[in-house]
Amino acid sequence: MQTGLLIVISGPSGAGKGTVCQALLEKKPDLVLSVSKTTRQPRAGEQDGVNYFFVSREEFEQSIAAGEFLEYACVYDHYYGTPRKTVEKMLAAGRDVILEIDPQGAQQVMHTYPEGVFIFLLPPSGAELRSRITNRGTESMDNLAKRLTAAALEIAQAHQYDYVVVNDSVPAARDRIFAIIMAEKLRVSRNHNLIQALAEEVKK
Amino acid sequence: MQTGLLIVISGPSGAGKGTVCQALLEKKPDLVLSVSKTTRQPRAGEQDGVNYFFVSREEFEQSIAAGEFLEYACVYDHYYGTPRKTVEKMLAAGRDVILEIDPQGAQQVMHTYPEGVFIFLLPPSGAELRSRITNRGTESMDNLAKRLTAAALEIAQAHQYDYVVVNDSVPAARDRIFAIIMAEKLRVSRNHNLIQALAEEVKK
Repeated sequence: MQTGLLIVISGPSGAGKGTVCQALLEKKPDLVLSVSKTTRQPRAGEQDGVNYFFVSREEFEQSIAAGEFLEYACVYDHYYGTPRKTVEKMLAAGRDVILEIDPQGAQQVMHTYPEGVFIFLLPPSGAELRSRITNRGTESMDNLAKRLTAAALEIAQAHQYDYVVVNDSVPAARDRIFAIIMAEKLRVSRNHNLIQALAEEVKK
Repeated sequence: MQTGLLIVISGPSGAGKGTVCQALLEKKPDLVLSVSKTTRQPRAGEQDGVNYFFVSREEFEQSIAAGEFLEYACVYDHYYGTPRKTVEKMLAAGRDVILEIDPQGAQQVMHTYPEGVFIFLLPPSGAELRSRITNRGTESMDNLAKRLTAAALEIAQAHQYDYVVVNDSVPAARDRIFAIIMAEKLRVSRNHNLIQALAEEVKK
């Protein structure tokens, strides 16, 4: 059995990471979405182990010290992180794990789990990104400019990924990611045992 | 516009290269099958420029000397080769070119066109390969053993390719190759310009 793939899906906010990941899981329920640990309080309706693993600050900081995160970040005084052990258990069982994550987190995973498949989701155009961010309606003009500058810097990081997927339509982006997953499983680097076994069987 | 992909499909005889390539072209008529040059005589029904480019021995040897082949071989005193210029013209026009070729030829293309996508087609099992070779009905037991030894050595070369595709069913093998083609077009190494252009558009 092949080890599962860790599929890291990142991109600037406004690229549509969440929607695309939902579409992946809907069409292919054998994919697993990684569940993060966090120190923030559960919101109404959130379940421990489903939306997040809710842990104390002490526990989180001990885990950081023990190197137990594939990546983590501190946002508005709350920690968020991807527990390495949970992910690795699923990968070892042959499950493919989706990690939906911002570009800063993805950069960390490139170091902690370089065997991952790194996919950068791009908006179809600058105009479209602007309109998606504006339509959230929560941004002042000043903030919009800041977000666009940040997005431009993030997009430049895409050069370090394995794949770019333009999110011009959610089903199209989803199917491109499915093609990537299928192709990655066929890479020779993941199939040396299969080749060797077949060569030996034919020789007999 | 992206340069087209050179998709090299190889494998031992009995892997089903020809059938799978036909299936690729039937489902995706924008793929181009590379046409070889040969010095052998056209058989009944063969058309120059469709099945082969039929050329004289002198012309072929001049082309060898001028380095005009992506790969060539001499089989039973006849030359066969893939003309580099024809292939590169189609690639430059954005067409994806399929090269169906034996492992020896593929080895040459790894040197002459390393940007190619190298796919090794595998039989589903040693037993199946044996039965496919036997069913051709043209082999003595002695020859069968020789062919299997040769096939085992060829299969071991698969380690040097980019992808392996098991040909357990032609439609399944075809769809795996389509996934590889789609994924390869999304590789960051083929999309640096797109990333750069988008980052600059967003910055404005």
